[in-house]
Amino acid sequence: MIQIFFLGTGAGSPSKKRKLPAFLVRREGLNILLDCGEGTQYTLMNNKLGINSIKIIGITHMHGDHVFGLLGVIASMGLLDRKETLYILGPRDLKDFLYTSFEYSKFNPSFKIEFIDNYNDQNITIATFKTCHTVESQGYLISERDRVKIDEEKLEKEKIKDWRVMRKLKEGKTVEYNGKFLKPEDYLVIKRGLKVAYTGDTIPCQSVIESVKGVDLLIHDSTFLNEPSAFTYGHSNVADAAKVALEASVKLLALTHISPRYEDVTEHLKVARRIFPKSILPDDLSYITLK
Amino acid sequence: MIQIFFLGTGAGSPSKKRKLPAFLVRREGLNILLDCGEGTQYTLMNNKLGINSIKIIGITHMHGDHVFGLLGVIASMGLLDRKETLYILGPRDLKDFLYTSFEYSKFNPSFKIEFIDNYNDQNITIATFKTCHTVESQGYLISERDRVKIDEEKLEKEKIKDWRVMRKLKEGKTVEYNGKFLKPEDYLVIKRGLKVAYTGDTIPCQSVIESVKGVDLLIHDSTFLNEPSAFTYGHSNVADAAKVALEASVKLLALTHISPRYEDVTEHLKVARRIFPKSILPDDLSYITLK
Repeated sequence: MIQIFFLGTGAGSPSKKRKLPAFLVRREGLNILLDCGEGTQYTLMNNKLGINSIKIIGITHMHGDHVFGLLGVIASMGLLDRKETLYILGPRDLKDFLYTSFEYSKFNPSFKIEFIDNYNDQNITIATFKTCHTVESQGYLISERDRVKIDEEKLEKEKIKDWRVMRKLKEGKTVEYNGKFLKPEDYLVIKRGLKVAYTGDTIPCQSVIESVKGVDLLIHDSTFLNEPSAFTYGHSNVADAAKVALEASVKLLALTHISPRYEDVTEHLKVARRIFPKSILPDDLSYITLK
Repeated sequence: MIQIFFLGTGAGSPSKKRKLPAFLVRREGLNILLDCGEGTQYTLMNNKLGINSIKIIGITHMHGDHVFGLLGVIASMGLLDRKETLYILGPRDLKDFLYTSFEYSKFNPSFKIEFIDNYNDQNITIATFKTCHTVESQGYLISERDRVKIDEEKLEKEKIKDWRVMRKLKEGKTVEYNGKFLKPEDYLVIKRGLKVAYTGDTIPCQSVIESVKGVDLLIHDSTFLNEPSAFTYGHSNVADAAKVALEASVKLLALTHISPRYEDVTEHLKVARRIFPKSILPDDLSYITLK
């Protein structure tokens, strides 16, 4: 199960309804923050989402609306006496920006900060993919590892209840049972890991389509409804996001990075769903649970 | 008349009730922002306090809780198409911090930013004064100019209604009227300008006391209630702020920069008022009007 909290679904300047970009991805106690616009620490604190429980932060690009809140989040982590290492992924300038700012503001993190290019543990991997914005930018693909599971139904049917048999099969071993040889491949099912992708700011582009093929949730730039110069600004119109979702056969599309010029977004959803029916447009503080 | 809006009365990390430090001082259309913790642009926007109406920003020192919100305020000023020059006062590192951050975040202000050491126009002056914190820090003294006003009551009593007479007296000229010579000094009163002082972070210190003598409002660091190491952290306890107010014979003391460890502040006020009765402890979004 993966939960995605939409902390900030706005763009550029905050609007009454939408804070600046930030998304919290939570899987069994692992908390990953994607982008960190100004105000993110308030949202985390006001919703008891535990600022110090964040292990990994991924920044898509250096524009202020995606990164200016990172200074405050890290400073507050220090003030809240963090001990664990914080892992950060992001564009080349990010490390220099952080340490220069810390120097100017006389702040010295009391915990280790490690800048990494990707992440993996026994449960998930986090990879980056190229996006197409006006500055160096990357999206994030969070993938649960596939899991080998025992086909309990089948075992039940064949009245096989010996847990030692199950364990050997799970270890990929053939097992002799009641005069029969049980082969692992006949009793193991692969439970496909869930995949969540977030583009950050981007126009629709091939590198995104190829990287997000078949993901369970795609969170895509949908800054504009029908702005002719969207691409010049390095952003997508809603229809563009829907076409990417369609072409990449994702399961669910979340439209985000909504320009403050829009208060009412009903039209956004209509346009998106004509192209890609499984589209949603989450408001701030909404969340999705993927199973 | 001067209005002071308490945008953020917290300290260090935001708490549920108190945002990071920021104060808006407004006098007849002139808006001055003092300190700019993260989240200030949200507070300005959510309360229709017009981010682009701010002409002058004064930063007391470079600690993140006082300055990290300035990046977002200036970026949003640009996005909201500001044309007027923005005047900024602050410690030496401020300019470099801003321009380095803008470079990293690929932001180019579309308006002029001028860094100044003090400000004056025909109505007010803004001067800085030395405060005693753990890093280079300065407080701000906003002073209305004294005004020469006609003693209208006296003129009324003496049945003098000729506006040309009033004007000459106001220009400091002696005027012949009904066979009498009216001297300006007999018909002019000095209306003393209002003074507002804000310390930023400080322990109680002589340079502050001398600089805020007799001000109408002193906004003083009151981070702690009774923290033995307050001075080591460069902050004041509430009683310290009250003693400064007493010694400097200010008219009104506003206790601020309240540590997030305190939810209930009733004790703070009791302690302060025992020493200096005219003490207040404004919550976020409250405001005072001085006349």
